[in-house]
Amino acid sequence: MTITPTRWTLADGRELLFFDLPGHRCAPVTDRRQLPAQRDAQSELRFDRISGEWVIIAALRQDRTYKPPAAQCPLCPGATGLTSEIPAPDYDVAVFENRFASLAGADGHKFLLPADPGPGFVCEPSHGRCEVVCFSADHTGSFADLDSRHARLVVEVWRHRTRDLLSRNGIEQVFCFENRGEEIGVTLTHPHGQIYGYPYVTPHAEATLRRARAHRASHDTNLFSDILEHELSSGARIIARTDAFTAFVPFAARWPVEVHIFPDRPARNLLDFDDAELDEFTELYQMVLQRLDRLYDEPLPYMAALHQYTDTESQCEGRFHAQVISTRRSATRLKYLASSESIMGAFINDVTPESLAQTLREV
Amino acid sequence: MTITPTRWTLADGRELLFFDLPGHRCAPVTDRRQLPAQRDAQSELRFDRISGEWVIIAALRQDRTYKPPAAQCPLCPGATGLTSEIPAPDYDVAVFENRFASLAGADGHKFLLPADPGPGFVCEPSHGRCEVVCFSADHTGSFADLDSRHARLVVEVWRHRTRDLLSRNGIEQVFCFENRGEEIGVTLTHPHGQIYGYPYVTPHAEATLRRARAHRASHDTNLFSDILEHELSSGARIIARTDAFTAFVPFAARWPVEVHIFPDRPARNLLDFDDAELDEFTELYQMVLQRLDRLYDEPLPYMAALHQYTDTESQCEGRFHAQVISTRRSATRLKYLASSESIMGAFINDVTPESLAQTLREV
Repeated sequence: MTITPTRWTLADGRELLFFDLPGHRCAPVTDRRQLPAQRDAQSELRFDRISGEWVIIAALRQDRTYKPPAAQCPLCPGATGLTSEIPAPDYDVAVFENRFASLAGADGHKFLLPADPGPGFVCEPSHGRCEVVCFSADHTGSFADLDSRHARLVVEVWRHRTRDLLSRNGIEQVFCFENRGEEIGVTLTHPHGQIYGYPYVTPHAEATLRRARAHRASHDTNLFSDILEHELSSGARIIARTDAFTAFVPFAARWPVEVHIFPDRPARNLLDFDDAELDEFTELYQMVLQRLDRLYDEPLPYMAALHQYTDTESQCEGRFHAQVISTRRSATRLKYLASSESIMGAFINDVTPESLAQTLREV
Repeated sequence: MTITPTRWTLADGRELLFFDLPGHRCAPVTDRRQLPAQRDAQSELRFDRISGEWVIIAALRQDRTYKPPAAQCPLCPGATGLTSEIPAPDYDVAVFENRFASLAGADGHKFLLPADPGPGFVCEPSHGRCEVVCFSADHTGSFADLDSRHARLVVEVWRHRTRDLLSRNGIEQVFCFENRGEEIGVTLTHPHGQIYGYPYVTPHAEATLRRARAHRASHDTNLFSDILEHELSSGARIIARTDAFTAFVPFAARWPVEVHIFPDRPARNLLDFDDAELDEFTELYQMVLQRLDRLYDEPLPYMAALHQYTDTESQCEGRFHAQVISTRRSATRLKYLASSESIMGAFINDVTPESLAQTLREV
């Protein structure tokens, strides 16, 4: 599958890309809104010396769009060029630079964060890229409900954006994700995801790679392959399989709802899969999301994400996988990250992974 | 200050301790409730091979008490012995073992978690201790509002419990904390905190100690002393000082509200302070909480915690400090930990630490 987007520019200079289903053709119009010019480096990266991690300080985001009424949805198509981030009478999948970006400026100039910032307080201008991916023009839909061709197009868009962003200077990690549901703070209900191009390897990925390198040194196998093998041989937490992918609840799940999708063969990111594999991935991913929505009477609030690594030596033990989590621990209750989790990083899960897996096999 | 609690036993065998203000004397009655016997090891510890961290799986907690009406508050004094976790007509400060404990069984038998659990799925029975600390018999009070003698008694109780729990087999870390506010999931509004005796060094403390050891190796100074020195010399984020303690917003704060209180001299836990120092700590801690409650019209939802380390060699670079955080990012909005934070550990803070510090100096 090759895919060539139509490139457009918004009133304040941000980039907008349209990805069409076969036989369709987007017809964008001029963005006629009065928008203040975007400034790069409005946010900053500060090094937290206690954790050894970068923190993004993005004060400008305080003013971001907050739960607009459906008639003013900035992600619905806007044929007049006056109402929407997507000035067009219709679209299939659209991607644009986030107007309230935590990270910006990955436009080709050289950028390298210091690996060990040394003593004192270290602060760098923001760098990176934040994109919004509108899954469909239908305001009330969801990823799970997209017809399979349309869902496959979104996966192809993730592949396209991963390739593009990884080729830019100073982007170390590309993170495609979807936050869904008011319960986890989502302020726009129109079905959409986001993509972050981080200027550093995120804390989770750093820790994972450290573990995976140590595993290779001790056992001469890949950590992720080993985990999948153990999950398959146990079977108690497997939800579903295709020829190339397995969906399961991890043995030590931290969240009351948590599902991982691992490929059977080694792959670091979406660029490593062929078209047939991505067809299968799309099918399994939608199936998982559909089952999650059947857990309760209401659609499940969730965070869904693709873990991707690069082909560099430091990331060579990383493996592509998808992860979906939810804070809903029962029909009426949510799991909150309180002091044990938020301050000490010590997670307490009230749901056993085996019981969740059984429920998800049956719904 | 020496303090000797009155020891009592609840109907299901759990321990209850009363700590009295000078001149008072608690008068507990028999707990006449019909409670199912507590079973140890109802929860389990599972090793997450991707992060290298233990996760507590505590399915029994799904049935815990959830937002009872004030008349049925289990933390109010219960003179009849039929209504409350604290069977007494009154109390000053009371501590009891949590009925819905994530960790239990730290009763003296030897317990040691494997440091490197090796390949495969490793699961251990739960071990540790979860206590509830009722700050006052007044259902509607708060820690910030306690009179200073009463607040000082709570700090003394934390010291007592730290000493007791650290002396038990298999407790590696003692964590005194308070979750307050429905916005962060608190299900009982009666002013109270909790204490966890973890059977492992928590992920946050592990990471911090690793950083602090590396800092010592590179600079031959303590990481925390160095951070405090830099904060003092900058001054931009200092909120208030006493002779022995400094309250400040950290340079790379992750949360829209975040305050740290560091002692000026090295100390690893509450046992390292003399009485006069703890008087000062209590005063500064209450002052910080009072200012936080003046930020908005409503009392601030917060998580407040004491970071404590032991005198063992592996923890010798750790330093006592208090941390208070809130998810409130404005009068009407909360910060949610969505995919970037919850999945990738990459924090985005919408509030600059300097502006928060200035506000907290002025309120």
